[in-house]
Amino acid sequence: MPRATSSECHFADPVELRSAIRSGRWLEPTINQCPGFVQCNLVVLPRGDAFDFLLFAQRNPKACPVIEVMDPGDPAPKFSAAGADLRTDLGRYAICRKGCVVEAGGIMDLWREDSVAFLIGSSLSFDYLLEACGVPRSQVWVLDTEIPTAPAGKFHGPLVVTMRWMTAEQAILATRLTARYPLLHGTPMHIGDPSEIGAKLTKPLYGPPVTHIPKGVTPVFWACGVTPKRAALDAGVEQMITHVSGRAFVTDLRVDRLGL
Amino acid sequence: MPRATSSECHFADPVELRSAIRSGRWLEPTINQCPGFVQCNLVVLPRGDAFDFLLFAQRNPKACPVIEVMDPGDPAPKFSAAGADLRTDLGRYAICRKGCVVEAGGIMDLWREDSVAFLIGSSLSFDYLLEACGVPRSQVWVLDTEIPTAPAGKFHGPLVVTMRWMTAEQAILATRLTARYPLLHGTPMHIGDPSEIGAKLTKPLYGPPVTHIPKGVTPVFWACGVTPKRAALDAGVEQMITHVSGRAFVTDLRVDRLGL
Repeated sequence: MPRATSSECHFADPVELRSAIRSGRWLEPTINQCPGFVQCNLVVLPRGDAFDFLLFAQRNPKACPVIEVMDPGDPAPKFSAAGADLRTDLGRYAICRKGCVVEAGGIMDLWREDSVAFLIGSSLSFDYLLEACGVPRSQVWVLDTEIPTAPAGKFHGPLVVTMRWMTAEQAILATRLTARYPLLHGTPMHIGDPSEIGAKLTKPLYGPPVTHIPKGVTPVFWACGVTPKRAALDAGVEQMITHVSGRAFVTDLRVDRLGL
Repeated sequence: MPRATSSECHFADPVELRSAIRSGRWLEPTINQCPGFVQCNLVVLPRGDAFDFLLFAQRNPKACPVIEVMDPGDPAPKFSAAGADLRTDLGRYAICRKGCVVEAGGIMDLWREDSVAFLIGSSLSFDYLLEACGVPRSQVWVLDTEIPTAPAGKFHGPLVVTMRWMTAEQAILATRLTARYPLLHGTPMHIGDPSEIGAKLTKPLYGPPVTHIPKGVTPVFWACGVTPKRAALDAGVEQMITHVSGRAFVTDLRVDRLGL
């Protein structure tokens, strides 16, 4: 398997990366690792919340593109990563109980018979595609918006977005490119003035505060997989387990084969 | 709104068609009606089966592209057809109880507080697109295959397909065209020899038996929305309500806007 030329890429093979994470040899973010393979947001909920959450995902497909849902109690993906274990193969977990969040290195002791794991496509998977098409890798921000999601049961709340900025020409290219990947959030949901979607650049959820947008670049916004996690947190679910930002689950699915 | 030129098209507007069905003025199939609008398979199940069924759909997206799922107890689509009522706006219903099927003209008395309605994209919606691109409208068959679906809970069984036949050139065109519409079953799942997928042309589920394939045409197979209905029937669910073949639910969604 060809290794990416970026000096930041230490793993080209998802099986090797997951093994290194499982054994504690790699605890860094998965950004830039295994280019060309689909990275996923993890959400684990009790069975009692699973239908409403899957419905929330179905109603908000740009924010919550579902890659795989495990059977209740099953921590092993069948479709996206044979041999993996979602309880051990992510670098860092966030455990949310009725609105409070703590972090952990593993979740073996928290896994329950009624735990349902959802894997949701992450835009971490497409940054390498943008780069390959000539859109330089740059800062990614995560921002709240004032756009409501379509609610389902107890799950509701605003759309959360990622923001990248680029030239207008690159924005058009990025739109064409990401249109091919609805399971990785698809096309941008907005291009241009952040205030039109109620995004406040001075108060990002992730990334440095921005006071002005440089001349010659345009902010481009994609729906973000933080949206469903935030909705579940706001809903005060009994227990939700997710990954810590930037430490996604790396699957064996090739980005170029997604949905084919 | 422009009316289709086909002499078989009596309704161009879905609101008019649904109103005519609701008042009993139109009980014919919806094939050829409202060209350009998405037609859907209806499946209504008790809340207790809804998560597994939605999971089955998520795992078999080519056979079960989900257009909309209503909240438990809600017979009124919000996204796909404002003002419609799924209990009255289909021409004929099939009620399945533990494997037995009876037909009915309406389901007002069968609707329950825990009824969950699923609308699943129908390939009835894309035949007009094929026609507009020069693939003549012709017989459509429905066939069993020996290809297993990905099971979910009690739902499992073989993939059911539709078959159309056309020239090789038309098959390529049809593949390109349907690739744009993953919510209408997307690309064909097979082109060519029916025996490769275990489809028996002499025993179709729908359409006349075929003993030989005419020279110059190639059978083209699409995953079919009968698949989940068959899976639910085989699972012996307590109660499932669907539409009678050919009498689909006609939404206000434009085919050309689907997924955009």
